[in-house]
Amino acid sequence: MIKLKLAILGVGLIGGSFGLAMKAKLGSEIYITGSTRTKESSECAEKMGAVDKSYTDNISAVKDADIIYLSTPVLQMVPIVRQILPHLKKGTIITDAGSTKQYIANKLHAILPQDIYYVSAHPMAGREKSGVSAATKELFKNRCYVIIKDREMPVPEKVMEKVRTLIALTEANITELDLVQHDRCASIISHVPHITASALVWLLNRNYEDIEACIKLAGGGFKDTTRVASSNADMWSDICLSNSVEIINNLQTLQDIINDVITAIDSKDREKLYDYFSLAKKTRDRIIKESKNIYEIE
Amino acid sequence: MIKLKLAILGVGLIGGSFGLAMKAKLGSEIYITGSTRTKESSECAEKMGAVDKSYTDNISAVKDADIIYLSTPVLQMVPIVRQILPHLKKGTIITDAGSTKQYIANKLHAILPQDIYYVSAHPMAGREKSGVSAATKELFKNRCYVIIKDREMPVPEKVMEKVRTLIALTEANITELDLVQHDRCASIISHVPHITASALVWLLNRNYEDIEACIKLAGGGFKDTTRVASSNADMWSDICLSNSVEIINNLQTLQDIINDVITAIDSKDREKLYDYFSLAKKTRDRIIKESKNIYEIE
Repeated sequence: MIKLKLAILGVGLIGGSFGLAMKAKLGSEIYITGSTRTKESSECAEKMGAVDKSYTDNISAVKDADIIYLSTPVLQMVPIVRQILPHLKKGTIITDAGSTKQYIANKLHAILPQDIYYVSAHPMAGREKSGVSAATKELFKNRCYVIIKDREMPVPEKVMEKVRTLIALTEANITELDLVQHDRCASIISHVPHITASALVWLLNRNYEDIEACIKLAGGGFKDTTRVASSNADMWSDICLSNSVEIINNLQTLQDIINDVITAIDSKDREKLYDYFSLAKKTRDRIIKESKNIYEIE
Repeated sequence: MIKLKLAILGVGLIGGSFGLAMKAKLGSEIYITGSTRTKESSECAEKMGAVDKSYTDNISAVKDADIIYLSTPVLQMVPIVRQILPHLKKGTIITDAGSTKQYIANKLHAILPQDIYYVSAHPMAGREKSGVSAATKELFKNRCYVIIKDREMPVPEKVMEKVRTLIALTEANITELDLVQHDRCASIISHVPHITASALVWLLNRNYEDIEACIKLAGGGFKDTTRVASSNADMWSDICLSNSVEIINNLQTLQDIINDVITAIDSKDREKLYDYFSLAKKTRDRIIKESKNIYEIE
């Protein structure tokens, strides 16, 4: 029986979790190779069973692969594809887990030949821990997994179907968006919140004389609001640079919103403040409720 | 045996939880009265066992009380004290759970006679739910509970000791701060994060065309970062108005931080972005670690 051959380039939290999910459902029907930056990570990936064989070079990892899964930080993906392209067989499908989509898609669209396919995708899953040791086969379960469907960059339906089938094995909820809408929405509900969480931690750093007292006082509110500030710095630097227009746009909108609050406090406008907090509550409560209808929430 | 008589004015999440904690430890050694805005809340408070008897007027609630626990939104506290003052016996101790301290302390200091004591305090505990039905005797357990010790407003040591003893029954970790430091630190680790969480939800509202797609995409990161945006609007409007100087000051510092990020993204300064995210990660990881050493974290 011809096994499906999957190569996961960048076996970290996301790539490792994808490998574990595939192995859990397909077992020996899938042969998974991987690539990591260090020998230690490769050994860990093999030991965990996220891959069958892991390498510290991408070319060895992609030998004979049917499907390539890119799960490195975003700005590493295109250079990696350039590097492996001469070694891919006709009909290879490349998919990725990058948190920004237009940047990668535009560049790959320019360099991929007609017989190598690219399905742009983004699993909305993660943990503030990173690295393959944090990987779990359940990472994507009941989470949103975006597969891009874009008129500007059409992909043959049988190729889309292959990728959908694999991703469905993770038990994620698949949503289709086009490239522009993905990057805009991701900046609103993921990129700007992450940057803001880090900014709140920096606020603490700027008040260094009070750090010890603040650490004692910091309760669940601070910890929840800043949880994602413990995320991987490489990943987030790349996200900022590859979705810069949307992120800057929405950061500036956030500044406007904060300015309005400052004005309301300064002019002691309790009514405005009450509306500010109560509408935020209403919207958020709605989001949680609608998410529960779509997904099982822990 | 002369029971201790406690009156909880504003039996909501905080007041209700305090009552439940007292009853759990002192049982029939303490007699608790309460006041609520509505008859339904009073009935709920009694049914839950947070109080022995609850009223919809403060004067009935404070009759013969030894200790008064103020747990209404901050701006209601001073008017309530004015209202009940003629009905308090000599030696009554007033303590509060307000999230801002200078505002209340300054005003009470001006109106309280020498034989009525005020111990300013703030439990760093809460949930995004509100109301007495959300109350639990464990709310304060292992959380920080600030008791103010301020040279400008000294309190007799035996009075402080009485309040400390009661608060200790909640199994909270008691920390002492002065008024100014409390308000400054609270603005950094609680007030500004809450305002910012609501601002991130408002960012979603400002992009209303994308709301449906955003709701599908919104994962754990968005939900954690905005969790406290589901908090009570009355409480938070009052906090903003009663700690306005510190809050505006720190919101402006937050805006400076965000401006620096915008500049770094715009000038494609990856190094600056990397430092931004990695230092935030370092600081936050340290806070979590040090908190674990002080408190048991769930």
